[in-house]
Amino acid sequence: MKRIKIIDVLKSQDFGQSVNVKGWVRTKRGSKAVNFIALNDGSTIKNVQIVADVEKFDAELLKQITTGACLSVVGTLVQSQGAGQTSEIQATEIQVLGLCDAEYPMQKKGQTFEYMRQHAHMRLRTNTFGAVMRIRHNMAIAIHKFFHDHGFFYFHTPIITASDCEGAGEMFQVTTKNLYDLKMDEEGKIDYSDDFFGKMTSLTVSGQLEGELGATALGAIYTFGPTFRAENSNTPRHLAEFWMIEPEVAFNDINDNMDLAEEFIKYCVQWALDNCQDDLEFLNKMIDKTLLERLHFVVEHDFVRLKYTEGIRILEEAVEKGHKFEFPVSWGMDLASEHERYLVEQHFKKPVILTDYPKEIKAFYMKQNDDGKTVRAMDVLFPQIGEIIGGSEREDSYEKLMARVEELDIPMKDMWWYLDTRRFGTCPHSGFGLGFERLILFVTGMQNIRDVIPFPRTPKTAEF
Amino acid sequence: MKRIKIIDVLKSQDFGQSVNVKGWVRTKRGSKAVNFIALNDGSTIKNVQIVADVEKFDAELLKQITTGACLSVVGTLVQSQGAGQTSEIQATEIQVLGLCDAEYPMQKKGQTFEYMRQHAHMRLRTNTFGAVMRIRHNMAIAIHKFFHDHGFFYFHTPIITASDCEGAGEMFQVTTKNLYDLKMDEEGKIDYSDDFFGKMTSLTVSGQLEGELGATALGAIYTFGPTFRAENSNTPRHLAEFWMIEPEVAFNDINDNMDLAEEFIKYCVQWALDNCQDDLEFLNKMIDKTLLERLHFVVEHDFVRLKYTEGIRILEEAVEKGHKFEFPVSWGMDLASEHERYLVEQHFKKPVILTDYPKEIKAFYMKQNDDGKTVRAMDVLFPQIGEIIGGSEREDSYEKLMARVEELDIPMKDMWWYLDTRRFGTCPHSGFGLGFERLILFVTGMQNIRDVIPFPRTPKTAEF
Repeated sequence: MKRIKIIDVLKSQDFGQSVNVKGWVRTKRGSKAVNFIALNDGSTIKNVQIVADVEKFDAELLKQITTGACLSVVGTLVQSQGAGQTSEIQATEIQVLGLCDAEYPMQKKGQTFEYMRQHAHMRLRTNTFGAVMRIRHNMAIAIHKFFHDHGFFYFHTPIITASDCEGAGEMFQVTTKNLYDLKMDEEGKIDYSDDFFGKMTSLTVSGQLEGELGATALGAIYTFGPTFRAENSNTPRHLAEFWMIEPEVAFNDINDNMDLAEEFIKYCVQWALDNCQDDLEFLNKMIDKTLLERLHFVVEHDFVRLKYTEGIRILEEAVEKGHKFEFPVSWGMDLASEHERYLVEQHFKKPVILTDYPKEIKAFYMKQNDDGKTVRAMDVLFPQIGEIIGGSEREDSYEKLMARVEELDIPMKDMWWYLDTRRFGTCPHSGFGLGFERLILFVTGMQNIRDVIPFPRTPKTAEF
Repeated sequence: MKRIKIIDVLKSQDFGQSVNVKGWVRTKRGSKAVNFIALNDGSTIKNVQIVADVEKFDAELLKQITTGACLSVVGTLVQSQGAGQTSEIQATEIQVLGLCDAEYPMQKKGQTFEYMRQHAHMRLRTNTFGAVMRIRHNMAIAIHKFFHDHGFFYFHTPIITASDCEGAGEMFQVTTKNLYDLKMDEEGKIDYSDDFFGKMTSLTVSGQLEGELGATALGAIYTFGPTFRAENSNTPRHLAEFWMIEPEVAFNDINDNMDLAEEFIKYCVQWALDNCQDDLEFLNKMIDKTLLERLHFVVEHDFVRLKYTEGIRILEEAVEKGHKFEFPVSWGMDLASEHERYLVEQHFKKPVILTDYPKEIKAFYMKQNDDGKTVRAMDVLFPQIGEIIGGSEREDSYEKLMARVEELDIPMKDMWWYLDTRRFGTCPHSGFGLGFERLILFVTGMQNIRDVIPFPRTPKTAEF
């Protein structure tokens, strides 16, 4: 008999039919006459209830049915008498595929999130992490579908790189060198000529620069891959290894870029609302009671588009009126999360796209405005989490780009290929980056970024 | 006026309408009276022909329109008089967005593939690499769509790992240690306690083991991410950084696994045939004249399912009948590509799934058959390239798995989490791996794996 997934069994109305389900025991309760077994196979947050008449089964077998055990059950699909479920299975055959003893780490309910992280290999079998992982999957699918439907090409930028020279301090080095026998050159520097790539290499911090190569050839691309930061930040918002989405589009200006970002992020959130109802309802009930409200807030409002200078003015007015911020407000500063959230949650009560930031606080490749002070950056600000997307129109003038590179003394010797995009058939283009785990935090209501990726990498932690 | 992508312009029948296209000049030719400009924007392999009457435009402007230059063109969509195209644009306004001088590396046609690799940042603007990258995108979309439609969850296994101890010799080390000041412990070993993760870490060679954690919780998962091999192999078939797809399914046995692999790979190839016609026709004409035939060969045949022992018998018979192989044939050996191709191309004239290999040549985690000699491995063999998929049913018995681990002396101290899947509610499960670039080689007819990924990483090469 072919196994049916529990998500499909629960939808079925074929009462009286014989079915086979397989999964793991979440709970068992019962009386002398009958056992009720809640079985879950990961296909949905809902369990199917197995009803086993005690007299029909061997007592030893029933004893083996403990929390975490793996079962194959054949039985008759019947209409449920209990509340909250439409169907259940009256068992005729039960086979224990895998025993589970009392050492099972997910035995007890109500463990802390920290306990769950230490048992991340088993936490996937719980309601909360099952829900988070199914939503994570759905967000990835929404992203691919959105870009594919809009004529973007998925573009794999390299993970190992020799050219992200800027932020060298925050990068992981990649090497095959024998660290017990490091060759030095005449100047006392490590000789990388015998390293795998013949030079010093690191893990990428962003695919954007290579993404621009893709966009200026294929028109519109997006990346979706792992990126790395060797920052020693032990916070609920930082991972050393995380996934990033970076669309880049030839011929888009900053306004097109804002349109794209707003349409894109609304599409993802709407996808969750349309495709993850059961999991969202669970999280809304158990993790964050304002979750669904916040998701609707995003899809139902036009995003406010506001220049940075205007944003600062609003914040300064708030200060004048007596609003207390932890960090002082002044033109030229980078906004803190409290400032971003004030604009979104208190002032506009809508998501905000802030543009035209001071050039000093933004990256060298952003298009310079005529005022000589600001660049065509844009950050999308959301309730609760602040910045969710950061992007810009790119400087497409070779001369202006080089002037900025020299001003900032950025080492470009390994970046000739990037400059070539401005030398040969340059074009206006724009793009942005979305940290995937930031999106998952927003869509699940989870509070710690370590709880929205299967196996988090953080300082001193690379388990599993 | 809103820009229209060239792929959409070429489909349009709205002759007489005014349109705006933007893109890069592929060629310009003409007479004294009229210039014909082939413009491409990456959305399709096809160019749109821009017709510019010389008398209507400034001579200086027309001179700036060189191969590689970036243009914005406004004009009237008209029915084409030329062969091979249905529409063209009679230009009314031309703006040069980006000049392109004679140093443009893609200036000349007919450059070697090696030249193209040295200019990988610009090769994306050529017909061949545009086609390959669009097909690569489509294969990624097909993979996500297939698994999503089948109820699998996309599962991000870690890139940085402390536990892939097996193949340590072929792994890239990841570190933030200061190599100029390496602390040693009392035994003279490097002290990793102050490294970022507090221990020695590497780049993953496979997400399978973590994937099994996902499958035994969520039911059915797939990975699709970068994997790494620090092998010093300078061949047309090896990359140091490549993308891999690894589905893993709880409750699937080896037969379900074969069904899944066959359905999956046929779906991908059929997707290419259905969605990449123009690019495939170009590659079939310019790169490999048997490409389309080979793609049809795969989707139109049932795959032969054959035990390894039977495969060896067929090869031995071939030898007896006078067929010459480079490598001798005997039970226990791993098949070479020539053997795999003989079975597929000459003996069966169908794709072949070979199963039940000798345990000595397969991984420790594969399910052991009762004969004590073979394991439930399966390799899918294709024409031209040989093995495209490798997988197995996994050993789900804790005792049998541990016996094999001890037999092979595999260090498992960092792998307690993997063994826990067999300790707590173990279940039959199966999975396989597909090297993404292998699939792209097969579907594009390209001969060198460096030509099917945007920026290949190979020994001594990490450019761009």
